Amino acid sequence: MQSDQQKLQAILDQAVDHARASTERGRVAHYIPELAKADPQKAGIAVTLDNGETIGAGDWQQPNTIQSISKVFTLALCLGTLGDNLWRRVGREPSGSAFDSILQLEHENGIPRNPFVNAGAIVVTDAILATYQPKEALGEIVRFVQGLTGDDQIFIDGRVAQSEEETGHRNRALAHYLASCGNLYNPVAHTLGVYYNQCALTMDCAQLSRAGRFLAFAGTLGPNRQQMVSMKRARRIAAIMLTCGHYDGSGDFAYRVGLPAKSGVSGMILAAVPGIASIAVWSPGLDRNGNSHIGTQMLEYVTNEMDWTVFS
Amino acid sequence: MQSDQQKLQAILDQAVDHARASTERGRVAHYIPELAKADPQKAGIAVTLDNGETIGAGDWQQPNTIQSISKVFTLALCLGTLGDNLWRRVGREPSGSAFDSILQLEHENGIPRNPFVNAGAIVVTDAILATYQPKEALGEIVRFVQGLTGDDQIFIDGRVAQSEEETGHRNRALAHYLASCGNLYNPVAHTLGVYYNQCALTMDCAQLSRAGRFLAFAGTLGPNRQQMVSMKRARRIAAIMLTCGHYDGSGDFAYRVGLPAKSGVSGMILAAVPGIASIAVWSPGLDRNGNSHIGTQMLEYVTNEMDWTVFS
Amino acid sequence: MQSDQQKLQAILDQAVDHARASTERGRVAHYIPELAKADPQKAGIAVTLDNGETIGAGDWQQPNTIQSISKVFTLALCLGTLGDNLWRRVGREPSGSAFDSILQLEHENGIPRNPFVNAGAIVVTDAILATYQPKEALGEIVRFVQGLTGDDQIFIDGRVAQSEEETGHRNRALAHYLASCGNLYNPVAHTLGVYYNQCALTMDCAQLSRAGRFLAFAGTLGPNRQQMVSMKRARRIAAIMLTCGHYDGSGDFAYRVGLPAKSGVSGMILAAVPGIASIAVWSPGLDRNGNSHIGTQMLEYVTNEMDWTVFS
Amino acid sequence: MQSDQQKLQAILDQAVDHARASTERGRVAHYIPELAKADPQKAGIAVTLDNGETIGAGDWQQPNTIQSISKVFTLALCLGTLGDNLWRRVGREPSGSAFDSILQLEHENGIPRNPFVNAGAIVVTDAILATYQPKEALGEIVRFVQGLTGDDQIFIDGRVAQSEEETGHRNRALAHYLASCGNLYNPVAHTLGVYYNQCALTMDCAQLSRAGRFLAFAGTLGPNRQQMVSMKRARRIAAIMLTCGHYDGSGDFAYRVGLPAKSGVSGMILAAVPGIASIAVWSPGLDRNGNSHIGTQMLEYVTNEMDWTVFS
Repeated sequence: MQSDQQKLQAILDQAVDHARASTERGRVAHYIPELAKADPQKAGIAVTLDNGETIGAGDWQQPNTIQSISKVFTLALCLGTLGDNLWRRVGREPSGSAFDSILQLEHENGIPRNPFVNAGAIVVTDAILATYQPKEALGEIVRFVQGLTGDDQIFIDGRVAQSEEETGHRNRALAHYLASCGNLYNPVAHTLGVYYNQCALTMDCAQLSRAGRFLAFAGTLGPNRQQMVSMKRARRIAAIMLTCGHYDGSGDFAYRVGLPAKSGVSGMILAAVPGIASIAVWSPGLDRNGNSHIGTQMLEYVTNEMDWTVFS
Repeated sequence: MQSDQQKLQAILDQAVDHARASTERGRVAHYIPELAKADPQKAGIAVTLDNGETIGAGDWQQPNTIQSISKVFTLALCLGTLGDNLWRRVGREPSGSAFDSILQLEHENGIPRNPFVNAGAIVVTDAILATYQPKEALGEIVRFVQGLTGDDQIFIDGRVAQSEEETGHRNRALAHYLASCGNLYNPVAHTLGVYYNQCALTMDCAQLSRAGRFLAFAGTLGPNRQQMVSMKRARRIAAIMLTCGHYDGSGDFAYRVGLPAKSGVSGMILAAVPGIASIAVWSPGLDRNGNSHIGTQMLEYVTNEMDWTVFS
Repeated sequence: MQSDQQKLQAILDQAVDHARASTERGRVAHYIPELAKADPQKAGIAVTLDNGETIGAGDWQQPNTIQSISKVFTLALCLGTLGDNLWRRVGREPSGSAFDSILQLEHENGIPRNPFVNAGAIVVTDAILATYQPKEALGEIVRFVQGLTGDDQIFIDGRVAQSEEETGHRNRALAHYLASCGNLYNPVAHTLGVYYNQCALTMDCAQLSRAGRFLAFAGTLGPNRQQMVSMKRARRIAAIMLTCGHYDGSGDFAYRVGLPAKSGVSGMILAAVPGIASIAVWSPGLDRNGNSHIGTQMLEYVTNEMDWTVFS
Repeated sequence: MQSDQQKLQAILDQAVDHARASTERGRVAHYIPELAKADPQKAGIAVTLDNGETIGAGDWQQPNTIQSISKVFTLALCLGTLGDNLWRRVGREPSGSAFDSILQLEHENGIPRNPFVNAGAIVVTDAILATYQPKEALGEIVRFVQGLTGDDQIFIDGRVAQSEEETGHRNRALAHYLASCGNLYNPVAHTLGVYYNQCALTMDCAQLSRAGRFLAFAGTLGPNRQQMVSMKRARRIAAIMLTCGHYDGSGDFAYRVGLPAKSGVSGMILAAVPGIASIAVWSPGLDRNGNSHIGTQMLEYVTNEMDWTVFS
């Protein structure tokens, strides 16, 4: 086992080395002022194994807002409360369009294609507000993620949330459009307030890889430990990650990396190797679909070297 | 092992029993005259295990044309010849629209979204014709599938191919549209001629489950046997099946069944359980996305009972 | 001349009689609470001739909010201030989609197709706010319409404006979408505040037909009277009315009625017979494109009987 | 009268002079080999007045294929035979998309938006084949246009028709798509054969302006002469020309020129000044919507100078 971890450590180091040497680094998200400041040279990766150990390389201990990766956690939380009733309000199909597209809503009467495009995640957050007041809801989300991570230091970066709220005309357009279709039950300001705050959950790769264990270990924090999400639900969330987790680049990611994963516009990606490991990567430069360019390369390298894939 | 197979046999029998008792059976494809004659009461399932044994239940030995499932085999054959050059002419993303949609071609300059929508499969067939004359190409396809199956009795049902050719205005529209974008290199009649014939490859569930072994067993016909497709390529084809194999129902299928799979309009579905088994089901009634309604239910039942999924 | 007006009076009376006898009356707009109360049995028509006389029939003296017909007046006012610079922010093509569609904005980077779909009219109002503060702007709009009508009693029904503002999620979605594309320069609340108020301008058919004289009489209030809008601009606005004035029913209206015209969701329509007359009709029931069903029938009847068309 | 014609002649000469001096000339259609040979420096204009006289300037006597302008004549012919039954198969709304777009067909079940986009014109031609065999149909079309023009020398340029037929994958895609929706009743080859031949009707500007008299003179060949098309039908065709005659540039053309008109990809445009004149222009360079760039400029100049518009 020791030598296995040494081999993995070496591969993570190589992945970061290759990442740092890459000349094509993608483009840092420019439309959220706080994110636009990120250094595209940064690259980190962390892996949490089934024995509970977390190892990492590069900038794996630098905290970032997890942005759209929060959609995985709110989906898990929401399904835990509402169950399958959620699927009356949001679909489970890849969208074939951009993360912030409004087109599909008009074609499909305000039912977002899946919970990982922005419109879908706004509906999920809105559905959580059926049970909780906005402030309570945020508390629940933070506590849920702290529980998954086993780390009660995880917090929300209010400055980033504020920064997004001030510039988020596209999301407000989506929310009002949903409302006009009867698929938003709370005031737009309430739902988006919670939404922007959940996106500003702040973790480093180590924390994020621990938060994602339930996806790799059938809903538990690792073999023989606490069941956080039912086994079936954890698998199903992983399925949606594989088909929809990278917006209109989901097919390509499945082809190249072969794992269920979810990306965020801060350049983080959370991936699960069922039964084996939970992985988090970070590098701020994005490809044209809004997914971390270098982060995807690091995942491709590591999964290739480790022979990690769900397809064999 | 014996008792394992007995347990599986019992589960397959139950799956067929439940299928036969189901009142909602979907709707038999009406636009291909030969398929319209199928009996929606039919239901069969076959599983080929890593020990090479095939067991089945229900109408598992009734031959059918495999229709769009042929796209998996022509993709494997084409990638073997052209390699990644194919991806210049076709994408790898879920389409977000119907199997025979032409919309996306207009938006994306004649590059089909993936090789499993009709337009994409027509391009794959066209690409095979770069290497072979139409008749040779068909021979190659048949021999390739016979090799995968280990059964040289597999044939093309010319009557069904003819029936499709006579009524296939939509596919001709797609082919001419591709040609108008410069993404069809051979005469429309040649490419579609091969396309309709490959769709008319005829197998029962037993044969089809054997033909799909390379997807479950890393490109081989089972552990320690012949490598038919490279390991990496087999996995990647499986990845495309999972994200795109059920048209605009791919996300829902991944959510419910959790396996890479490809459906055909005859009501067959081919699915792979990596390292464990290859499954073929058949029941002619289709859901609104063109996938076998009862076939999906049988797969959901069996994978649930057997705990087969790629997500854990 | 007297007998001509008697003949016209008789035709207007007949138009209203036929309208009242019609069993298919369309559907009153339901999404604006104040409009939903309207009585679909109502029908009125007024014609203002080049001699300045206004004659009418039916409910021609019942005031209503003019809704989207206000877009004609704000366009004229805005072009008077900004001139052709406006066309950098909004197009002049029929949209091929619904009045409140957001699809086209996504396809065309936030440039609305024309100034008569909601998104385009919101941009026009926003452009007026480059010159005036919101309250001033409303004052300017009211005074401009009063001047065109020659009636300083015309007012804004604040209750209807309020009613729309409270329920107008779709328009807020459009405005935020425009803002996200950089095509809204003022705060959404300011621009929409003015927009809802302009829509609540209140007139009866008599007043509206007088307000529309500049469209029929080359920018004047009738031959030999004050030039309110330049001749060229008045003609061009009429051209946009003919191609875009009835949303996705504009082609059909041109075919049946053959006049430049603009409809409003309250069931009013303003039409111009160049050189001859300005017509206003009202009946609250709408067809599927959001245009007055009975109003169109009355216009079709009168123009047919009077042989009024721009096409001969 | 004489001096009026002299004034008009001078204006036509100036229009051509300005056209020849223009540096931005658009782009000659490249996808039809025979058209690609045209000289973009060419520019001609002809006007036929109500007294029957035709005057012209520039290259007004050089024959060209009229291409899509033929759609006006086949529509008139078809409505004469089928009457309003045609409107069950084709709409009357501007399309909001390109002349050869297939998108709208998929959204609207194979009913083309109007008879002037390619798909719509193919349906019109197909409808003519309900009455005539393909060769007869062509004969009828030619005789009808000869009758309108009063010139039995008008012919079809078979070489251009052949050239289009060989390269016309997009039109074949449209026709097969229509067929797949049940909106093409004849074999694709028959309908397209007639379609390509009607597009190859060959006229110079003088002939074309005479052929268009029925649009300007209420269905007659000029005041007090033969009624070729009913008055109402002629006006209605003019209405469709105004809203749909320039594809996705129809709104802009109405705004700038203010006349019902139809363009063809050879660079010709036919326009009608109701009660006054019929105009034909030609210059081969096209704008991005496929309409003659210089031709539109010449029309804008002449209508401006002559104060010709339907909007006053």
